[in-house]
Amino acid sequence: MSKDKQVEAITNRDVDFAQWYTDVVKKAGLIEYSPVKGCMMILPYGYAIWEQIKNELDKKLKATGHENVYFPMFIPESLLQREKDHVEGFAPEVAWVTHGGENELTERLCVRPTSEVLFCEYFANAIQSHRDLPKKFNQWCSVVRWEKTTRPFLRTTEFLWQEGHTCHATAEEAQQEALDILEIYASIFEDFLAMPVIKGRKTDKEKFAGALETFTVESLMHDGQALQAGTTHNFGDGFAKAFGIQFTNKENKLEHVHQSSWGVSTRMIGGLIMTHGDDNGLIIPPRIAPIQVAIIPIAMHKDGVLDKANELKNRLSSDFRVKLDDSDRTPGWKYAEYEMKGVPLRLEIGPKDIEAGQGVLVRRDNREKTIIKLDNLEQEVANALEGLQTALYQSALDNRENRTTSVTTIEELKTALDQKPGFIKAMWCGELACENAVKEQATATSRLIPFEQESVGATCLACGKPADKMVVWGRAY
Amino acid sequence: MSKDKQVEAITNRDVDFAQWYTDVVKKAGLIEYSPVKGCMMILPYGYAIWEQIKNELDKKLKATGHENVYFPMFIPESLLQREKDHVEGFAPEVAWVTHGGENELTERLCVRPTSEVLFCEYFANAIQSHRDLPKKFNQWCSVVRWEKTTRPFLRTTEFLWQEGHTCHATAEEAQQEALDILEIYASIFEDFLAMPVIKGRKTDKEKFAGALETFTVESLMHDGQALQAGTTHNFGDGFAKAFGIQFTNKENKLEHVHQSSWGVSTRMIGGLIMTHGDDNGLIIPPRIAPIQVAIIPIAMHKDGVLDKANELKNRLSSDFRVKLDDSDRTPGWKYAEYEMKGVPLRLEIGPKDIEAGQGVLVRRDNREKTIIKLDNLEQEVANALEGLQTALYQSALDNRENRTTSVTTIEELKTALDQKPGFIKAMWCGELACENAVKEQATATSRLIPFEQESVGATCLACGKPADKMVVWGRAY
Repeated sequence: MSKDKQVEAITNRDVDFAQWYTDVVKKAGLIEYSPVKGCMMILPYGYAIWEQIKNELDKKLKATGHENVYFPMFIPESLLQREKDHVEGFAPEVAWVTHGGENELTERLCVRPTSEVLFCEYFANAIQSHRDLPKKFNQWCSVVRWEKTTRPFLRTTEFLWQEGHTCHATAEEAQQEALDILEIYASIFEDFLAMPVIKGRKTDKEKFAGALETFTVESLMHDGQALQAGTTHNFGDGFAKAFGIQFTNKENKLEHVHQSSWGVSTRMIGGLIMTHGDDNGLIIPPRIAPIQVAIIPIAMHKDGVLDKANELKNRLSSDFRVKLDDSDRTPGWKYAEYEMKGVPLRLEIGPKDIEAGQGVLVRRDNREKTIIKLDNLEQEVANALEGLQTALYQSALDNRENRTTSVTTIEELKTALDQKPGFIKAMWCGELACENAVKEQATATSRLIPFEQESVGATCLACGKPADKMVVWGRAY
Repeated sequence: MSKDKQVEAITNRDVDFAQWYTDVVKKAGLIEYSPVKGCMMILPYGYAIWEQIKNELDKKLKATGHENVYFPMFIPESLLQREKDHVEGFAPEVAWVTHGGENELTERLCVRPTSEVLFCEYFANAIQSHRDLPKKFNQWCSVVRWEKTTRPFLRTTEFLWQEGHTCHATAEEAQQEALDILEIYASIFEDFLAMPVIKGRKTDKEKFAGALETFTVESLMHDGQALQAGTTHNFGDGFAKAFGIQFTNKENKLEHVHQSSWGVSTRMIGGLIMTHGDDNGLIIPPRIAPIQVAIIPIAMHKDGVLDKANELKNRLSSDFRVKLDDSDRTPGWKYAEYEMKGVPLRLEIGPKDIEAGQGVLVRRDNREKTIIKLDNLEQEVANALEGLQTALYQSALDNRENRTTSVTTIEELKTALDQKPGFIKAMWCGELACENAVKEQATATSRLIPFEQESVGATCLACGKPADKMVVWGRAY
């Protein structure tokens, strides 16, 4: 009864995906809206997911020689203006601090929308010799971009992210860094978030303000809309020249450094919700689930039930993240609650189970119930989690493949996107005018030029001239 | 030679403590100044210290049922004004955002100086029933206070901290929470940072804006100035009434919650520098040192030296945080470098040592050299680290005791502080006028009313009337 009541409150996913998303985000206790438009309060369960992702990524970054730092949130307006493309890209969407305490500031400060200029300012002073290279910095912080339309996790005025900033002696090293980080991002998405991604580079139109090249991992949501999941940028020596970041090389000659920057954000949480969730709520991939197993005692008042539940919790806690819910809610309420929160497994344990030395293990994704011997508990849980992790990835991949179409004209592209939203492959000649034409006529953007190219035609979808670039197009969050 | 050069560059600690502090902070690579006054760039080594402290504290907070969240950095002006004392305390020192993108905001936003009002706004909506209590939230973030005079770590415009915000059903629970957290803070200071602290409460004059009672851990720096190391606040139901945070109790009656808040910041790093550092630089207590052992190979070009150094590094790495410096700098340069960075132990290993199956272990604090058998390496390192941790604490405690004086009048207090800065104990009647008199006549503030009271007289140091409160006074950072 309680259960039905709770499930009723969510919009059906296939009826109104946007409303379903908002419902899940709220009902699963991930966020609350704040008094400032577009800013969200990330609640314990939402933040715990972020901490899991952050820990995994942080380990990988440290293992590859990156060092964490913390640079200030305020950037003087004059510093932001130092690199032309960069300021044009960001100035329209920053928040400006004009007063400190009771005084008006002589120069207004922007709240960082990203920190390239501050890192460059630092690098210009700190780097002198080839011995100072490479510098591979990363910071975990929040940034602010004044967005007109906002949605929890996907597009918020303030969001949490990491931003990496590196300096290298050669152009090749900077390029390699941007590509290496893209692989790390891909691994976080595929191996932890169970989200298949396509790797490639952005067109010049879509690249980062001030970058030579932007690389991206793109993924497809359940509804067929694309999500730019993470990007890495090779800056070449553009910022280095604007900021005067030079070093003496081994031949004692002065050179500019070559740089990269890269970031992923709390938007990843939006991505995992829209990839895996269903009509009962969230489904969180086991490897990053804050709670992997919820233990629900049945007929809790009966002798021995809570003791047994506690014993099982203790046994599982050394290898898994476990929660025993011994609150006075009904089992039905608890089932619905942990389904809503997307906890991968639930273990039901009641007096009859205890007598029989067994328990009931229920998988969140397919709701499959398995009666397991408690003697084999750890192994059964490990197997079920592994199975669920694989199944989520496969299901997301199936959805993407099912929603991938090849076309040869803008008209076809528009029809394809209207009929079955997804990734649309089409050849492109490389001209900005053609890319703009696609945007105008089909309200679609180029998502990326995948590293793994294939031929889906010989001519540009817009101008019809010979084309050798296979581009993935789509409508994106 | 390189070594001498580096050591020369630091001001002598006893000649000019303030300059010595600035030198250490810079030379040890903890921070760099940013283009915005009072904001610092925390560099890898400085941030690594913060990460160590953060990890230890975060574990303790989670183990006691606190949940991490992330609330927005922007607070609308009207919300800040909701609690009268609070806004009076903070409004004069906040940074104001007046423009978002190209538009002027209809209401200006302050960059959080602390987040009580936002948490209260959330609690007012989220809490309905006694079942929703307690709520024990914590967040790791940065806050901004527009300071006139700033010093790295000690007082910066933006700083990193954690802020805990909790709601409870009863006044007793809120009080207990504030006291429990104070114990956790004390343990972080004493057991990890090797900084002895005195626990107690602040006078009404010195308490947090809006609090019923503020508790504090106070420590004494090497130069005899006091440092307020961390504070916890019992709010009673003051904020709850201002924000309408009510719950239905078990008797189905509406009541206001009782609240606490508490925080410690990157100021802790300033504290540990000023407690333990010496004329050769930092000394970092082993339990939070990012690098516990620096391995320095001697005659690195000789056969087998680097192999052996790597072997030792691998052996030690499972239990300790180790860095092998195989750069092309001289051993002398490396000795000075890791001394400056305050690495607790260095292990020198050269061809003759290898032949003899031994190494040289040097302690950072007393520079004691011990020739150790490599067979016992792990045990020797563990013992030396433990010894250093204990010695640092004892040395700081000795300094504090040596600098603690009891007085009975303001005149004596002033003389004591002028002659030997430190903690001054004196009786106080409890009147604000007397506290103000001490401040005016001796430029000293009441640091705290220690929990552990002792009698150092019978009359107030200011008015001479009977007094039963023993207060510790001092001049503080």
